[in-house]
Amino acid sequence: MMRDSMKALRFCDGCLSVSEIAVPKSDTEAVVRVSLSGICNTDIEIVRGYAGFEGTIGHEFVGVVESADDAPHLVGKRVIGEINAGCGECDLCLDGDSRHCPARTVLGIVGRDGCHAEFLTLPSRNLIEILDNVSDEQAVFAEPLAAALGITEQVEIFEDTKVAVIGDGKLGLLCAMTLALRSRNVTIIGKHKNKVAIAERRGVAAVLLDDVSPAMAKRFDVVVEASGSETGFATATDLVRPRGKIVLKSTFHGNPTWQASRVVVDEITIVGSRCGRMKPALQLLETGSIDVTDLIDDRFSLADGLNAMVRAGEKGVLKVLLAP
Amino acid sequence: MMRDSMKALRFCDGCLSVSEIAVPKSDTEAVVRVSLSGICNTDIEIVRGYAGFEGTIGHEFVGVVESADDAPHLVGKRVIGEINAGCGECDLCLDGDSRHCPARTVLGIVGRDGCHAEFLTLPSRNLIEILDNVSDEQAVFAEPLAAALGITEQVEIFEDTKVAVIGDGKLGLLCAMTLALRSRNVTIIGKHKNKVAIAERRGVAAVLLDDVSPAMAKRFDVVVEASGSETGFATATDLVRPRGKIVLKSTFHGNPTWQASRVVVDEITIVGSRCGRMKPALQLLETGSIDVTDLIDDRFSLADGLNAMVRAGEKGVLKVLLAP
Repeated sequence: MMRDSMKALRFCDGCLSVSEIAVPKSDTEAVVRVSLSGICNTDIEIVRGYAGFEGTIGHEFVGVVESADDAPHLVGKRVIGEINAGCGECDLCLDGDSRHCPARTVLGIVGRDGCHAEFLTLPSRNLIEILDNVSDEQAVFAEPLAAALGITEQVEIFEDTKVAVIGDGKLGLLCAMTLALRSRNVTIIGKHKNKVAIAERRGVAAVLLDDVSPAMAKRFDVVVEASGSETGFATATDLVRPRGKIVLKSTFHGNPTWQASRVVVDEITIVGSRCGRMKPALQLLETGSIDVTDLIDDRFSLADGLNAMVRAGEKGVLKVLLAP
Repeated sequence: MMRDSMKALRFCDGCLSVSEIAVPKSDTEAVVRVSLSGICNTDIEIVRGYAGFEGTIGHEFVGVVESADDAPHLVGKRVIGEINAGCGECDLCLDGDSRHCPARTVLGIVGRDGCHAEFLTLPSRNLIEILDNVSDEQAVFAEPLAAALGITEQVEIFEDTKVAVIGDGKLGLLCAMTLALRSRNVTIIGKHKNKVAIAERRGVAAVLLDDVSPAMAKRFDVVVEASGSETGFATATDLVRPRGKIVLKSTFHGNPTWQASRVVVDEITIVGSRCGRMKPALQLLETGSIDVTDLIDDRFSLADGLNAMVRAGEKGVLKVLLAP
């Protein structure tokens, strides 16, 4: 039974609050009752002003379809959702790439209320049903896992490709874990022994940032920058071999500086990488190829959303989940 | 008949001078009598401190082989030369990529006297004989032409690929001219009407920088940054489409800033591009596919090298040649 109002974690007029707002209704989109949502660094960046977004934040979720006029078979199904909703009419959308549609909305990031709420709406074509063997706690990782997996669609990774991942936050760990499914030669570089250890348990070599030595310079075929810091990109530039590739995975505040001449002289390629496809990510969870359990650090009720955001922003904390 | 001393345009202890120095001799490398050399922007950058190089500058040349103990058939032949000399023993050299050998020397740029002199030395394997139908004035462009042509080895360019080249200097014009051999859809963006007109005569569309409109934003599949300015890179970032490519062709002074978040969000790829292979470039000159005549703005004697450098550094001046 749908109610008239619901709780939502919202950022408006420079203020973050848990507000009581109207439950969204839609004739053209599906309405999803959120079971669990995950706090991403992007949520924290939005509260700092990134993307100029106002409204309900959050884009990582798992839920149950409440209504879907154009896809009644989905009602009652457990789903995750592609967060980009394209216009459906431009060249990019017609080409199947609504993730780059210039008129797109993005759940909780661009022009569309997000998932840290009791209900959300998305086009029914964005929803993907999930199997019973994937728990809510695993399924809520599908979106960041897809983002990590997107790397392998942009850069060729072979069994012997020497890969370094810089950053031991949620995204860095997911990148290292997914890349280790392709290459036997993945190194994660981070600041926290307990966090790099999570990747180490999946066969990834771990190096603490302070232990990065000149002998490691120009040794890696592919370096993934997932720390989101300017110094992280400088380290990536140091580690990549001539003609190697740097994958830029995290967004940066403002306009950082970079060693552009090194990029030219050593003919380095830099690949910007944002989203990935949800289905292959979901498959990794269904088959148990990726287990995200030890990435979960805490869990809050949606009503306690402000404290959840504070906790998620603490140094060294990995995934914080919200339950409506 | 070889002499004992020769003129050379040298940068030492922060001073540029035309000096009388010993003619180089070598048992292991070929000695080439320089017929003509070209002043590159890199020469001017070196005098400003780039690469920390000291010695004879210059890396664009055509000459006649004077001696070559390990390749006597080359003696008396007109040649151009690959400017990177690898160690010949590392993985990269053994893999045929001496251009990125970490122990390489580079003619007039890294650890090796350059070509603004009466004689130079290079390993004989670096030399390429040129046909009689290519004049010295055309052949001296082989190195920058190879650098321009290198783009097509790193990025796929099809007949309908929308390409923009930013910068109407020597390198920008050569890039636009070579790319127009592949794509019917090349636009050059520069500051000087008379310079972009040179590319326009080869079927390239020309737009003055002041006329770049918001309607051009995110429209190009590939954007080549050949202006060497931080604003040029910003313009490239504005013009490239989501998932498009920016080719970074010119080296930058210091560490410029960049819109890293735009690169991530729109999943742009940045390709650093420095050198190219000399033989395909020479073929373009041999077949007359590229005519560089109207890129030559002036010609000086080597003895007048200081004035030549001043002239080459003037705003709007294209190629300046030096004749020993």
